[in-house]
Amino acid sequence: MKKRAQPRSHCPVNYGLEAFGDPWALLILRDIVFRGKRTYGEFLRAEEGWATNILASRLGHLISMGILRRDPHETDRRKDLYSLTEKGLDLIPVLLEIVLWSAQHDASSEAHRIPRLVAAIRSGDRAIVDEVRERVRSGEGIVKYYLE
Amino acid sequence: MKKRAQPRSHCPVNYGLEAFGDPWALLILRDIVFRGKRTYGEFLRAEEGWATNILASRLGHLISMGILRRDPHETDRRKDLYSLTEKGLDLIPVLLEIVLWSAQHDASSEAHRIPRLVAAIRSGDRAIVDEVRERVRSGEGIVKYYLE
Repeated sequence: MKKRAQPRSHCPVNYGLEAFGDPWALLILRDIVFRGKRTYGEFLRAEEGWATNILASRLGHLISMGILRRDPHETDRRKDLYSLTEKGLDLIPVLLEIVLWSAQHDASSEAHRIPRLVAAIRSGDRAIVDEVRERVRSGEGIVKYYLE
Repeated sequence: MKKRAQPRSHCPVNYGLEAFGDPWALLILRDIVFRGKRTYGEFLRAEEGWATNILASRLGHLISMGILRRDPHETDRRKDLYSLTEKGLDLIPVLLEIVLWSAQHDASSEAHRIPRLVAAIRSGDRAIVDEVRERVRSGEGIVKYYLE
């Protein structure tokens, strides 16, 4: 879907899709939230296989949408660190609902390794969203907290 | 993202993206859930502007993933009717979270016309998911129930 300065419509689903709905963009969010990745090199190593030009363009798009922030690495000046803004952190419930759906419908899902998180999402308790949000804000991937 | 017989990974986010995460596929789900569209001709009239070959391919993909079902029209044999399977209905929470996020971050969002639904999603009460699900199952778009 071509990126535009103005969304095609302000239908809330369409707005979300134009902002973050590119599948590759969502994999970046996945890598930050669940795996604690923060650098270009770390994103590039995803098992789904990035083309470098696509990764760079999606990172730029997410920054332009106010979902990601790029800051200089504290110690390694050749690297940048990517993290979620507040607007980006607000996408956590979307990611969690995708995890729940896949847990329900993919027998081979890796989500079966984190049953406590899946059960908490299913319960609809917003406390799990707040818990995940705080963990992501600290810059660490959350999966390790829920492995059983 | 190229469609494959096997997902690139069983990461639950990636699985969801390969199943329904194509932006165009999500617009079909949007049209069914919120607007009660059921035929090819109705989908084609979305304001985002479909290319007919993309629409046909995305409908076929969603059927192959078990998310959509295609049945003959009751009275007009030239038409097919598309509806969500149970697996497709299970995607309603993903759509609702996208609506909530857009309501929070797009000042021009059409979601502002349905504040009661947005507030119900924000509260995290799963009852709203069940309510929407039953309305979608009846084959009608839900927006009209929440307009204020």
